Amino acid sequence: MSRTLHLNVFIHGRGHHEAAWRHPRAGSAPLTDIGFYEQIAAIAERGRFDSVFFADHLAIGSEVRHAARGALEPLTLLAALARATEHIGLIATASSTYTEPYNLARQFASIDHISGGRAGWNIVTSWLKATSANFGDSAQLGHDERYDRAFEYLDVVTKLWDSWADDAHVDDRHSGTYVDADRVRAIRHSGRYYQVAGALNVPRSPQGRPLLVQAGSSDKGRQFAATYAEAVFTAHLEKATAVEFSTDLKARAAALGRDPGHVLVLPGLSPAIGSTEAEAAALWDELNALTVPEVGLGHLSARFGGADLSHLSLDERLSPGDLPDPANVEGAQSRAELIHRLVASERPTLRALLHKLAGGRGHYITAGTPEQIADVIEDWFRSGAADGFNVMPPILPAVLTDFVEQVVPILQRRGLFRREYTESTLRGHYGLSRPENRFFPAGR
Amino acid sequence: MSRTLHLNVFIHGRGHHEAAWRHPRAGSAPLTDIGFYEQIAAIAERGRFDSVFFADHLAIGSEVRHAARGALEPLTLLAALARATEHIGLIATASSTYTEPYNLARQFASIDHISGGRAGWNIVTSWLKATSANFGDSAQLGHDERYDRAFEYLDVVTKLWDSWADDAHVDDRHSGTYVDADRVRAIRHSGRYYQVAGALNVPRSPQGRPLLVQAGSSDKGRQFAATYAEAVFTAHLEKATAVEFSTDLKARAAALGRDPGHVLVLPGLSPAIGSTEAEAAALWDELNALTVPEVGLGHLSARFGGADLSHLSLDERLSPGDLPDPANVEGAQSRAELIHRLVASERPTLRALLHKLAGGRGHYITAGTPEQIADVIEDWFRSGAADGFNVMPPILPAVLTDFVEQVVPILQRRGLFRREYTESTLRGHYGLSRPENRFFPAGR
Ligand SMILES: Cc1cc2nc3c(=O)[nH]c(=O)nc-3n(C[C@H](O)[C@H](O)[C@H](O)COP(=O)(O)O)c2cc1C
Ligand SMILES: Cc1cc2nc3c(=O)[nH]c(=O)nc-3n(C[C@H](O)[C@H](O)[C@H](O)COP(=O)(O)O)c2cc1C
Repeated sequence: MSRTLHLNVFIHGRGHHEAAWRHPRAGSAPLTDIGFYEQIAAIAERGRFDSVFFADHLAIGSEVRHAARGALEPLTLLAALARATEHIGLIATASSTYTEPYNLARQFASIDHISGGRAGWNIVTSWLKATSANFGDSAQLGHDERYDRAFEYLDVVTKLWDSWADDAHVDDRHSGTYVDADRVRAIRHSGRYYQVAGALNVPRSPQGRPLLVQAGSSDKGRQFAATYAEAVFTAHLEKATAVEFSTDLKARAAALGRDPGHVLVLPGLSPAIGSTEAEAAALWDELNALTVPEVGLGHLSARFGGADLSHLSLDERLSPGDLPDPANVEGAQSRAELIHRLVASERPTLRALLHKLAGGRGHYITAGTPEQIADVIEDWFRSGAADGFNVMPPILPAVLTDFVEQVVPILQRRGLFRREYTESTLRGHYGLSRPENRFFPAGR
Repeated sequence: MSRTLHLNVFIHGRGHHEAAWRHPRAGSAPLTDIGFYEQIAAIAERGRFDSVFFADHLAIGSEVRHAARGALEPLTLLAALARATEHIGLIATASSTYTEPYNLARQFASIDHISGGRAGWNIVTSWLKATSANFGDSAQLGHDERYDRAFEYLDVVTKLWDSWADDAHVDDRHSGTYVDADRVRAIRHSGRYYQVAGALNVPRSPQGRPLLVQAGSSDKGRQFAATYAEAVFTAHLEKATAVEFSTDLKARAAALGRDPGHVLVLPGLSPAIGSTEAEAAALWDELNALTVPEVGLGHLSARFGGADLSHLSLDERLSPGDLPDPANVEGAQSRAELIHRLVASERPTLRALLHKLAGGRGHYITAGTPEQIADVIEDWFRSGAADGFNVMPPILPAVLTDFVEQVVPILQRRGLFRREYTESTLRGHYGLSRPENRFFPAGR
């Protein structure tokens, strides 16, 4: 079959459920232990996953009291993992708002070299207020301005990644020519937000540039993804909205002249796996019983730009009016909207809402037998909701192991998923080609 | 003996001589090949070196035509090397001028975790004009302002590294307390140049913070080193100036209330090693014959703030008036002064000066038998010129291998250098203790 399913594992704390760290199946390694991540990456590689992925927020809040936070920094982590893995793609989040483009372009190029072409960048504009306060940005740039800057930022870094022709490195001892300087180009970028002379001080990397991944869902976020992203993470509580999202995103990409097949949509999926559906579902109950409402409330508040939600009581039913209007949120608009819709349609108690978000933070969570999980995956895949999944194991590495040992073989038997790696780069795994160099096209 | 010699290897291109890449003893791996650095680090670890070190300039210039430039980025490189080595310290250069303090503090803390306490930061303020042009800094901040910012920068990052008490991570599943939030502190830094709320989002690292290394030699640079540095790289063409430098630096540290024994001075030493002195010296001639004057001239010009030197002819004797006054140089003042002094005392031809700088770029270069090299090391060490050396092999890895196989055993026999690693951290190798946490002192 021509269309292949893609699987990424999203690594987060000791698992995606916010209370995972307290569960008996969770390991006890600190989040600063590189061995913990190496173990997870090895399991994912055994399962022939396309990639591992690390989110990132440039701040830490009081939720650390009761939630597993405070981990390794994603880019240094990726570089270390590059040497402990052989095949799997390595995707890290980095902020276009709070990192200099020259530094970011260079670190990703370097990781792409170190990993032999397995680097990916999840581009975020950073929505947390607490982050801006760590970067002298006292007022916090607004949502739309962060994206305006991100567009120019991508223009800068993609130029930097193209500033060396692939054949620039001549290394001719005899003539004394190390680099053909005509094949390295100062980018001389001078824009509204950035002035960067270039060239980059790292030769063009195996993939040309890292795989570009994005995860924003607001109107601006989608337009940005349609312009630049090759893979898109997205959060949906139901298949219908995922289909709508994917259809919209691909249409936007097509309108920009891109092949919509080269923008892969990967909704989040947080599965509990058991030998019966009831056994699987019990895991969510166990985990929910370990939550501390304070953490969920803090998270919910952050989603709504730091709104004070302390007047709400845990066991009364919510109505949408209890939460701020998503349109006024300067943080992560799309997630705020999604929560609003859920409250409008289900009218959950605050406690039930927090449980729902504690598991998947707005992503699709499910429980079932391996066959049932595979059915969901196949259904979403075939109905245009997903080109693959951002697998978010509620407990790490335990539920990733379950998934690799129990679900992956079914997907393989159904011909949906690879049995062996057939490509050596992250782009290769996702079926994407190496981008042409804009300054030095192949035919010269 | 109580005072021990320290050895760091400075890894640069295919060796420190600018034409090293053309020499038959140089390897052919590209500078983007992580295997090349792993090989060098393994040799250094076999030689029981304290550390490896990478310089960094956030730009690339036309010298790349004839000089080996365009390598991996140092922090990602360090993270990868952390997993390929076991004992040796890992020092990378990063700029306080062009990197956000929150990002830098975090990446070094992360590398310190990944390496189990082997990270070091060579703090530079970035003197190359070409660098500023990659960071929207069109006028380039002046020399002294870069240092003023650096002082505040160090205040910020050292606070961030102390923002978690060592015992903050409680990880108590039973009570649901992951972190004791009273033991994590927002630093609330609000200064002239930086506003950073904190806390860091990485727990305190094995060494508390990376080893702080510095390499500036101007008056401001020395005062900065005396305030913050624990190890200092420095360039000298003769023992006398090294003694003067070390004496001055330690006096400054003592005047600030620091133990001068905790500021280790490591002059650069670029040795050619042979079975006779003549055989060793021949290596310099071979290398000098491979140089391209354009590269040396470009480098010399950069040292003098980009001055035009094209009117000078290669084979006429120079006088100090041919070069700009170092006091007016906004780049690297100390190195400009050193070159000035050399020209005044030796009156070399431009070609001879370029050859001298091609080898060690202003550092001490020598040629001799292993015994002779060991004699120089012992002499400088005993006479207060050096606490150890920044070994700069003219060809990498070839001359590092010579050094490890031929010179290190002599130093060990003389009781000057360790035979086995006795400590597990970089600070441990250098005989330095773990810094106390300023916010959370040991007795609480
Ligand atoms: C799977 C997934 C992972 C994300 N990871 C991050 C992250 O690590 N850091 C971050 O700042 N935002 C992250 N986001 C949020 C988005 O990237 C985006 O910044 C946010 O939703 C605001 O954009 P929007 O208003 O366009 O939705 C993530 C979103 C998704 C779906
Ligand atoms: C061994 C050694 C290595 C250095 N490495 C760097 C470097 O990697 N990047 C850099 O910008 N400067 C480097 N320098 C220069 C100094 O750190 C310093 O920035 C420069 O000399 C200007 O400071 P000064 O005017 O106080 O001397 C190095 C100096 C020495 C001695």
